[in-house]
Amino acid sequence: MQTIKMKNNVYLLNGYSMVGPLEGRGPLREYFDYILKDDTLKEKTFEKAERKLLQSIITGAIDKANLKIGDIDFFFGGDLLNQIVSSSYTARELEIPFVGLYSACATMAESLALSAIFVDNGLANNIVAGTCTHFSSAERQYRFPLELGNQRPPTAQWTITGGGASIVSNIKSKVRINAVTFGKVIDFGIADVNNMGAAMAPSASDTIKAHISNMGKKIKDYDFIATGDLGKLGSEILIDLMEHDGVKLGKNYADCGCMMYDKTERVFMGGSGAGCSASVLNSYILKKLLKGEFKRVLLVSTGALMSTTTSQQGETIPGIAHAVELEYVTPIKPVKKAIKSKEKKND
Amino acid sequence: MQTIKMKNNVYLLNGYSMVGPLEGRGPLREYFDYILKDDTLKEKTFEKAERKLLQSIITGAIDKANLKIGDIDFFFGGDLLNQIVSSSYTARELEIPFVGLYSACATMAESLALSAIFVDNGLANNIVAGTCTHFSSAERQYRFPLELGNQRPPTAQWTITGGGASIVSNIKSKVRINAVTFGKVIDFGIADVNNMGAAMAPSASDTIKAHISNMGKKIKDYDFIATGDLGKLGSEILIDLMEHDGVKLGKNYADCGCMMYDKTERVFMGGSGAGCSASVLNSYILKKLLKGEFKRVLLVSTGALMSTTTSQQGETIPGIAHAVELEYVTPIKPVKKAIKSKEKKND
Repeated sequence: MQTIKMKNNVYLLNGYSMVGPLEGRGPLREYFDYILKDDTLKEKTFEKAERKLLQSIITGAIDKANLKIGDIDFFFGGDLLNQIVSSSYTARELEIPFVGLYSACATMAESLALSAIFVDNGLANNIVAGTCTHFSSAERQYRFPLELGNQRPPTAQWTITGGGASIVSNIKSKVRINAVTFGKVIDFGIADVNNMGAAMAPSASDTIKAHISNMGKKIKDYDFIATGDLGKLGSEILIDLMEHDGVKLGKNYADCGCMMYDKTERVFMGGSGAGCSASVLNSYILKKLLKGEFKRVLLVSTGALMSTTTSQQGETIPGIAHAVELEYVTPIKPVKKAIKSKEKKND
Repeated sequence: MQTIKMKNNVYLLNGYSMVGPLEGRGPLREYFDYILKDDTLKEKTFEKAERKLLQSIITGAIDKANLKIGDIDFFFGGDLLNQIVSSSYTARELEIPFVGLYSACATMAESLALSAIFVDNGLANNIVAGTCTHFSSAERQYRFPLELGNQRPPTAQWTITGGGASIVSNIKSKVRINAVTFGKVIDFGIADVNNMGAAMAPSASDTIKAHISNMGKKIKDYDFIATGDLGKLGSEILIDLMEHDGVKLGKNYADCGCMMYDKTERVFMGGSGAGCSASVLNSYILKKLLKGEFKRVLLVSTGALMSTTTSQQGETIPGIAHAVELEYVTPIKPVKKAIKSKEKKND
């Protein structure tokens, strides 16, 4: 039951992505909907900037899907700030029912998975699912004051500024949500908060294996398998772990954190943050799916579930990974045209 | 679509509650499953104590329902600690898929509502939904170091030590889950973190009105309506707000926070915390429902969605309330007996 197959009633209607200036210089720049010139968004604090970013992303997604806020039944989301305040305060502006979630950087897949279940079972018509992160608010909440200019070890990742939101809908589109897998919390004993890729790799491996096995598929059945934000080291560990279990991740595998930045940027192991897989899904992956360049994609968002308190108290870092399978479906004939062609036949 | 009616496939099979010594001296003492003598649970920190408390509650609920961990498909939960670490680290021990949630003190109803939807739609057989809080870990995370002995203003509430978990199941029991309502985030401009009841009352009012209207019911159709943790002042505000809208909450209304403590305890406006409605639901309310003393109950858990950072940055406090409607159903004849009595008839 870990993997839930949809009854083919649910689509990813559209998505919207917005990133910061550093991310906007990266290899995916042509795919993002909006690249910020100023990562403060003219707000006085980075936390307020993050909130404004999420609000812009959510309304951006609704607009892009040609919907109005009144068409949206629920907002499913969460973020990395304590008490997921970016999402809660965004929900305050939306005035629609809010389902608050937390899976750290796996929140995009969790939101998408639950939204898909609601729509597939006829409990909602349209849901907006989204999340984002801000480098500066994450850095000062999880690590050190920005002013301290602390050095980073080589295994560290860089929390992206950016995020994305998807409209999950029963309106037919070219991208169907096939199935979702909810992950288990797995801890291999990594205690170094500057090596989160290693902490999350075991859960990514577990979820991918569970998903493909439950779906009766193989790795090669997917054009693209994307993990959330394992980074360079984490994704190498994932490849090793899976190979050890006889599953070979091939050229169709990539990590959103590794895809985010140009090689010349000093971001060490690459991008991380809930916004990482959210922005890559709702830009690069979605656009490739909409064009039919990807036929079937497995998005595996990965989260490290520690807090600063657990780390200070000597705890290791548990990881989680949730997966969503997306499929390109051939365009449906518009109803009007179909009726017309029928009328013609009858004439 | 804010209210989702079940197709009558989902039951609250059983529940388990555990509270601290102070709560165990209160009026509900005879209903709790376990009262701690030592609120440290022999752990070195209050955060570790909270985690052990939640683990005990979750395993307690599974045991009490005569199930094994292998029978449970998902754990739905969250808590008040940053990054919901009590729940995530509990999920690590359970080794089953975990759906992490956050609605502050509305988390019990959110967990229950999502679990009910999964089971009602055949996506799971048994789910454990639960949460808890610990006075000392909440106090030092949200307010002041305990050692400071800070004075509390008269509108303050007391985060309970305790919590509860429910087994949501397709196994028929005497308590059916009828419907759930997901709340909107509402903010009336209260900025005082020592007056959370006032901040949450508007969302409680909104959710109760939405639920009874969507269900085509009236207040008097419920034997018992319980808000999560508005406390004394908050529940008076709720009564006023609803009366203003022409809805009169009668003697069938009570607040879990007000029910928790003896009047002689110095807990000001009463109990609060995610564990508050979780422990009252899984003790007093559930036992009354199982005996048929309550026929229909509306549980409305209420959450204040601020963080210490938003408060420090001058933000007001948004509230949310999720509702779950529970109904006593006449006991189903056990299958064996039914067959026997049929055989007798045929004889």
